[in-house]
Amino acid sequence: MAGVSAALAVLWFSPDGERTLGHELVDPAAPLLSALDLSATRGDGIFESISVGDGHPQALEAHLARFARSAAMLDLPAPDAGAWRAAIVAVAGAIDPVPESFVKIVLTRGIEGGGVPSGWAYATASPDASAARTRGIHVVMLDRGVRHDVAQTSPWLLAGAKTLSYAVNRAAVREAARRGADDVVFVSSDGYLLEGPTANVVLLRDGRLLTPPLDAGILPGTTQADLFDWAPTRRLEPVYELLRPQDLLDADAAWLVSSVRHAAPIRAVDHAEVPVDRELSDAMNAFLRGRTG
Amino acid sequence: MAGVSAALAVLWFSPDGERTLGHELVDPAAPLLSALDLSATRGDGIFESISVGDGHPQALEAHLARFARSAAMLDLPAPDAGAWRAAIVAVAGAIDPVPESFVKIVLTRGIEGGGVPSGWAYATASPDASAARTRGIHVVMLDRGVRHDVAQTSPWLLAGAKTLSYAVNRAAVREAARRGADDVVFVSSDGYLLEGPTANVVLLRDGRLLTPPLDAGILPGTTQADLFDWAPTRRLEPVYELLRPQDLLDADAAWLVSSVRHAAPIRAVDHAEVPVDRELSDAMNAFLRGRTG
Repeated sequence: MAGVSAALAVLWFSPDGERTLGHELVDPAAPLLSALDLSATRGDGIFESISVGDGHPQALEAHLARFARSAAMLDLPAPDAGAWRAAIVAVAGAIDPVPESFVKIVLTRGIEGGGVPSGWAYATASPDASAARTRGIHVVMLDRGVRHDVAQTSPWLLAGAKTLSYAVNRAAVREAARRGADDVVFVSSDGYLLEGPTANVVLLRDGRLLTPPLDAGILPGTTQADLFDWAPTRRLEPVYELLRPQDLLDADAAWLVSSVRHAAPIRAVDHAEVPVDRELSDAMNAFLRGRTG
Repeated sequence: MAGVSAALAVLWFSPDGERTLGHELVDPAAPLLSALDLSATRGDGIFESISVGDGHPQALEAHLARFARSAAMLDLPAPDAGAWRAAIVAVAGAIDPVPESFVKIVLTRGIEGGGVPSGWAYATASPDASAARTRGIHVVMLDRGVRHDVAQTSPWLLAGAKTLSYAVNRAAVREAARRGADDVVFVSSDGYLLEGPTANVVLLRDGRLLTPPLDAGILPGTTQADLFDWAPTRRLEPVYELLRPQDLLDADAAWLVSSVRHAAPIRAVDHAEVPVDRELSDAMNAFLRGRTG
């Protein structure tokens, strides 16, 4: 019997776009979107990627809260948390059981001029992240072009919203590959560490876990937040603080943390080796992997 | 007999993604794209909007050249100009004749991991731009967050590429609407005029037509280029020059120029009236409207 490796649910909305009517499981291999959908033509929408460990969507409420924040920043209709939760659970449960999977949810402005959003939830097995979690990753630091306070001064730049307009994030990762590295830590034009293209940066220094303040034009990380809640159980003090590139080079250890890959220890920065705390990395990933909510 | 108001052609590519095999006209109302297409999930692709005047695609070769430049900046396969030209002509000719229409062409990285691009061409009648062309538009100046030299220092930020990641451009236009205006002129973080979200800015001052240099992190405008070629016939000298916000306020006249709307005279900046040159605006639009190539 053929296994089910992917599942797709489409969300249905009322004609005024304001109410979510429910979801329907559809064939994930069939075309879903009009060539006029503003996701495809303008990157005009939002998303979340939610890890699923042994069938449990992880940090689900934090993801739904961030989804709602992103929607507000883009003037999209407020997502109906119950309807999205039901769609996430449905697609997560529709694929063959695997230890690690993820659900991606997307809300778009729909067809130009139509006024009705498009929405879907897609589940599949997670790519194998064991090499990144154990051997670690090599990052390069790249200019993000903007100041660290741009979310306050210029909200139309959407810093801190998880939009579909990720072309720059993907170009940055290709630039990292060209330089022989795996991933990126963005630096603001005024010289502060920001985040990775799809992850938050976390440093260990003198028994403290450090990450940039959430108002520094970065995406508030659901995985980073869970790690900060967990830190005291390891006698680590979680701290939000503006950080400089030198702080990354001087750290006792550092990670890029994200929903699906979890905690990837940084083993090199711009071709210079930096220390890896293998034991703490393993503990982080065991905690993240074992979450049941 | 029902009219044909829209036409859609899908481009077909070889399995390695390198060769374009041709196009096929398909139903524009049917779903075209997978929910996994990277246009929809990451805004990872490029586009052009080509005006069609009385059946003639305008500035077609300039659009195709810019499409190729954008593809190179995003490490997409080089578009096959002949195949795209054929698709553009096919969809432009498939709709009912109207005085002004446009064709949008899109090339995406395709389905994640698949290595085969997606591409399509879509034609429909242009929205009525007569009010913008004659009464003019009210613009606000908004911070673009980045320096004017970012295309040189940080090419991974894709400044100057026409990508599908336009969420910020659309958020800026919504911000303009909130402020009671129609459109936006972006200003760099170091205080230079850049461009509009979907247009170039052109100023008239002392018999010269001025626009920012093409390496100032802006999209080289096909309409602006045609106007600069035409300017000497009006005894106007076309000049590329770094411009400041005060230059816009002090100009003898100013426009946002773009493929489909053509030349929209700026009648107010941040709620302050600025002079409109109605005669020159009309001449510009007559020229742009009458192009047969």
